[in-house]
Amino acid sequence: MRFLHTADWHIGKKLHGYDLLEEQADAFQQILTIAKEEQVDAIVVAGDLYDRSVPSVEAIEVFNRMIVEMNLQEKFPVLAISGNHDSSTRLETGGPWFVQSNFHLNTRLDQAFQPVEMGNTQFFLLPYFEPISARLFFDNEEIRTIEQAMKEVVTAMKKQFKPDMSHVLVSHFFVAGSEKSDSETKLMVGGLDTVPLSLLESFDYVALGHLHGKNALQAENARYSGSPLKFSLSEMNQKKGVWIVDTQIDETTFEFKEIVPLRDVMQIEGSFKELTMPRFYESINRENYLHIQLTDRAVIPNMMNQLRQIYPRVIGVERLFGREEQQKNNQTKKEIKTIAPTELVDQFFSEVTGEELTGQQQVWVKEKLADIHQAERGK
Amino acid sequence: MRFLHTADWHIGKKLHGYDLLEEQADAFQQILTIAKEEQVDAIVVAGDLYDRSVPSVEAIEVFNRMIVEMNLQEKFPVLAISGNHDSSTRLETGGPWFVQSNFHLNTRLDQAFQPVEMGNTQFFLLPYFEPISARLFFDNEEIRTIEQAMKEVVTAMKKQFKPDMSHVLVSHFFVAGSEKSDSETKLMVGGLDTVPLSLLESFDYVALGHLHGKNALQAENARYSGSPLKFSLSEMNQKKGVWIVDTQIDETTFEFKEIVPLRDVMQIEGSFKELTMPRFYESINRENYLHIQLTDRAVIPNMMNQLRQIYPRVIGVERLFGREEQQKNNQTKKEIKTIAPTELVDQFFSEVTGEELTGQQQVWVKEKLADIHQAERGK
Repeated sequence: MRFLHTADWHIGKKLHGYDLLEEQADAFQQILTIAKEEQVDAIVVAGDLYDRSVPSVEAIEVFNRMIVEMNLQEKFPVLAISGNHDSSTRLETGGPWFVQSNFHLNTRLDQAFQPVEMGNTQFFLLPYFEPISARLFFDNEEIRTIEQAMKEVVTAMKKQFKPDMSHVLVSHFFVAGSEKSDSETKLMVGGLDTVPLSLLESFDYVALGHLHGKNALQAENARYSGSPLKFSLSEMNQKKGVWIVDTQIDETTFEFKEIVPLRDVMQIEGSFKELTMPRFYESINRENYLHIQLTDRAVIPNMMNQLRQIYPRVIGVERLFGREEQQKNNQTKKEIKTIAPTELVDQFFSEVTGEELTGQQQVWVKEKLADIHQAERGK
Repeated sequence: MRFLHTADWHIGKKLHGYDLLEEQADAFQQILTIAKEEQVDAIVVAGDLYDRSVPSVEAIEVFNRMIVEMNLQEKFPVLAISGNHDSSTRLETGGPWFVQSNFHLNTRLDQAFQPVEMGNTQFFLLPYFEPISARLFFDNEEIRTIEQAMKEVVTAMKKQFKPDMSHVLVSHFFVAGSEKSDSETKLMVGGLDTVPLSLLESFDYVALGHLHGKNALQAENARYSGSPLKFSLSEMNQKKGVWIVDTQIDETTFEFKEIVPLRDVMQIEGSFKELTMPRFYESINRENYLHIQLTDRAVIPNMMNQLRQIYPRVIGVERLFGREEQQKNNQTKKEIKTIAPTELVDQFFSEVTGEELTGQQQVWVKEKLADIHQAERGK
């Protein structure tokens, strides 16, 4: 069984206000081309098909065309799950008809235990879920974290394992020790959502979604495909693409195939004068999404408008003057940004009361934050 | 060919704040029962499947279950269109897969000219559309109204007519001379949306959606099915249900089959004392949605709470004291409410300037209002 592993399409996502639908449609065409060239038997999409639970009409139009082309026109079997950005219910419409043409789109936990069998492989399609769903499904009040839930999930899946077949898990969560980029929505609420790699060792391959870098996790049997496009400046130097996975009797191999973006994310540095000289700007691809680092110290009137006349897609301008100070500021901001919500409450509590949260209080905070997190997602 | 004609499901609609999903699921079951008893060959749904362009997750869950049961489990062919309340794009997802099991859901004007043929009948499924869509589709700048568009639409459809077959149009608009209820969203913008009955005479039957009363239009070859439930007090005395239509070689006959609501909409009248006496309230179905007319003249402290303890679903309380005056007030309010937007602008213009709008100004107003109307719908 040979399949293509992609994830985190985030159809409808914007980059600093710029619509990426054209880039997304282009990346999709490259995925299709790779699938054809590599003669894969199926395409796996590991969640976050859309960027928002209620996508725009324009995003839906693009997505509708993609799935029609991939499954009905090009006849690729598709194995997909909903991610934390998708509304499982909204994505579910049509699912019972999709299977007629080998398009399996799982959006509910209960669907994950009926593997899809293709060739020599059993695919377990596990959509993103919250601990509460597992609590209800397994009728187990003890389940409070994704790790606890995954123990039960994997046990239930293993009961379906056929020993003479390969076993692939398609899922969308954060595996402990993985490396994050700036464009991923923080799922983490005090570590409640982290899955240790050891829980996944029964599978020949785990096709992961959620993290946007293909190198986020280095494991023998598991990979994030990463997003098909760069969604933040922090991904500037990442290579984007898909994995081509072969499940054979004794081993599973995978190889990365690159996607070249229609418009790249890049950074340029120089003085305003340099950057506005034709000799400079004609030497680079000005259609790209550009983060500009200015070396000037003086005030430049109407700077942004002048830059935009030359560079139509400026995603940010940074002044390098006073660089050290600025970096320090960025540092503090960044620290606040990446701190876990539980820690933030912890710090706030200490600041206000002069005392630390007790163990029980910490548990309450975690549970409450998980509830809020879930309520905010609106299912 | 024998089919069931329903429309205006408005899944997710609320009645004075009360969720109707349970009633809607019940009415749907009755529709299925009728379809089975009458042994119909197909179920026609003439638009407004949902109540809102972005339905709630709960509404989508109910709707998803309905279409799975109707088409995949009970195996009924389904012929459906989007209405003015539906988002055509959001409803479109899945459509290309639905046809594999004879579920035809048209959401775009261009789909209307490829009839679905079943038995002896050609079905033309014309979704709700705005004049701008017809202007683009027919590449005809002259098209400004639905009437103008419908002339072209019908001409194009007639080219597809097979002479030895019956011809059924499924559509969602306002036919001139029809009678409205309070629960229909006003499509009318200065009459731009009205279709004269004469335009529809080529069809053996026109299965209409949009108006909520089955008797809204009396024509030899056209009917509104009406909504399966009462959506306003003004529909209190209407019978709700579906049409069973037979297209035969020489004539088409149709018969109405009633749906009995799980909870009815009704009006009760009496003094507070009478209405709170067990002898009275035990004689009626208190589970119904009730509009209460109070005959008292005195102030009644905590009235609403007391009434709601007996009648859990009060949709309105009206004081009959000073009835004449109140009626006069209602009259004026009602007049403003049902006045066409163009007329309202007309009146306002006269009040402010003391002059009347010129013919050209009236045209501008109409066009602008049509634009606003369309923009507000957000596609």
